[in-house]
Amino acid sequence: MKTRIGILGYGNLGRGIEFAVRETSDMELTAVFTRRDPSTVTIQTENVPVLPVSELLNWTDRIDVLMLCGGSATDLPVQTPEYAKYFNVIDSFDTHANIPQHFAAVDASAKENNKTAMISVGWDPGLFSLMRAYTSAILPNGNDYTFWGKGVSQGHSDAIRRIEGVANAKQYTVPVDSALTAVRNGENPELTTRQKHTRECFVVLKEGADPAKVEKEIIEMPNYFADYDTTVNFISAEEFAANHSGLNHGGFVFRSGSTGADHEHNHVIEFSLKLDSNPEFTTSVMIAYARAVKRLADRGDFGCKTVFDIPPVLLSELTPEEMRSHLL
Amino acid sequence: MKTRIGILGYGNLGRGIEFAVRETSDMELTAVFTRRDPSTVTIQTENVPVLPVSELLNWTDRIDVLMLCGGSATDLPVQTPEYAKYFNVIDSFDTHANIPQHFAAVDASAKENNKTAMISVGWDPGLFSLMRAYTSAILPNGNDYTFWGKGVSQGHSDAIRRIEGVANAKQYTVPVDSALTAVRNGENPELTTRQKHTRECFVVLKEGADPAKVEKEIIEMPNYFADYDTTVNFISAEEFAANHSGLNHGGFVFRSGSTGADHEHNHVIEFSLKLDSNPEFTTSVMIAYARAVKRLADRGDFGCKTVFDIPPVLLSELTPEEMRSHLL
Repeated sequence: MKTRIGILGYGNLGRGIEFAVRETSDMELTAVFTRRDPSTVTIQTENVPVLPVSELLNWTDRIDVLMLCGGSATDLPVQTPEYAKYFNVIDSFDTHANIPQHFAAVDASAKENNKTAMISVGWDPGLFSLMRAYTSAILPNGNDYTFWGKGVSQGHSDAIRRIEGVANAKQYTVPVDSALTAVRNGENPELTTRQKHTRECFVVLKEGADPAKVEKEIIEMPNYFADYDTTVNFISAEEFAANHSGLNHGGFVFRSGSTGADHEHNHVIEFSLKLDSNPEFTTSVMIAYARAVKRLADRGDFGCKTVFDIPPVLLSELTPEEMRSHLL
Repeated sequence: MKTRIGILGYGNLGRGIEFAVRETSDMELTAVFTRRDPSTVTIQTENVPVLPVSELLNWTDRIDVLMLCGGSATDLPVQTPEYAKYFNVIDSFDTHANIPQHFAAVDASAKENNKTAMISVGWDPGLFSLMRAYTSAILPNGNDYTFWGKGVSQGHSDAIRRIEGVANAKQYTVPVDSALTAVRNGENPELTTRQKHTRECFVVLKEGADPAKVEKEIIEMPNYFADYDTTVNFISAEEFAANHSGLNHGGFVFRSGSTGADHEHNHVIEFSLKLDSNPEFTTSVMIAYARAVKRLADRGDFGCKTVFDIPPVLLSELTPEEMRSHLL
């Protein structure tokens, strides 16, 4: 029997889950739940209902894993502990600083109700976290480096759009080449915020807005831009639509460390992602972990998990024997 | 109490284990066992005995994990199943084709005697296997690529040294740049053996040997060189000692796959290693997994394991809470 997947929230992540399920042979999409009027939501899979969230609790025995596709700011802190009472759940909660408290809330809820939950599944947190964990255990005498981009930062784009006179905006986070090269060469540099990333902004102005004033406001914005070298490009709405509507992203995790009698041997481990679609890749990771969640729930291993708790064997459609023969 | 580590075999791997233990704060080296005359073996750690292999079975209650540092060709197929009767063990068995039968032998032996064993721990098999497992589960619609090098191939170096007239030799496996670039760009090329790697040989001739004859014999050697573009450089014994005595290695694992309604979004995952010392990095991986083996044995999870079976949380000196706070 296939693992029955439910989706809560049909935005970019929800659509990504739908596509990712299609790439498997052991899962099927059962239902999509939305806070919008379901009649306004069109999905890509035939014979799968789109239902209002108010229907969700009628589906507890028809969904094996519920994929929570809301945002980390306000949706998931409420949704994940709540729905872990009724379903095995996975979210992509990515507010790093609040992970411990989110974990505690979800763990309590899942354990009390014999459900298996996973939080913070994606690429950062997610695959990048895995890399940091594996590589720091292997090379204890060393340094970690994480770079993001080139890619779209939604939070920074939103911040620009809130400035008076801005019609639309997109902000790309770009790792600094010379910093990447120094790390890649095992130089173990100490890097300031400004030395690691630059910020490139593409802004469409409202009629009559003063570009110099908008540029100054962006560049000096505390927390978001003041600590970075920021470039601002003013473009037309047409150019914006043509060249800046994608959701590409990516990044790099390095571990640079040394071994030997006098630490005379250097080693550099590099992991990188180049992603055409941030949400579709994130949800591809989530669907692989949905397989693990189902398997853990079936064996009665309840509570909240993260990527650190999951042995890779649980992610694959292959049997352990096949994995040892073909992948080891 | 610290995890007590024993070493069987004090060559490059044994020495690497000794160095790797020093980087931890939760392990200690208990004893080194050798097939040589122990009085001829000097180790770097004070107050640790070097003993003949005949003493090993007297140490079953003083060693938590025995690190098997022999070779894959003849040592490990015998040693690992044998010593898994008496100890929790780890090896770096790397004959990919024989992994299933090695696994079966070690698993039977470990299970019957309530021991935890791990085989094929290192970087390939090992970290590269992990990458292939994670990334193929995440991007089912895609291709894997593994490249090795630039680095020393011991087997190919040995093969050259067996040729008449050769005094010494070292062979480097080198990934082809244009192939790496094509994969990195998401072009999903189909690559022949010849298109993926070249082989560079540095050879010291015995007096009176005919370089043309030796070169021809290398280049045409079946299995080892005939399918590759091979270059042969004849050098002096002095140059060989000065420039070709290292054990550097490395390599790349890629997953290139696509997602979306029509697979219109491409993603490239790249993992690479640049290692000054192949044996010291291999043993750094083994020591991280020794922590996991001890933890599994303590909870009564016996039998043979591979890297696929181990959740990352078991590798770290950090607590699960610390990992979630600092690494997730």
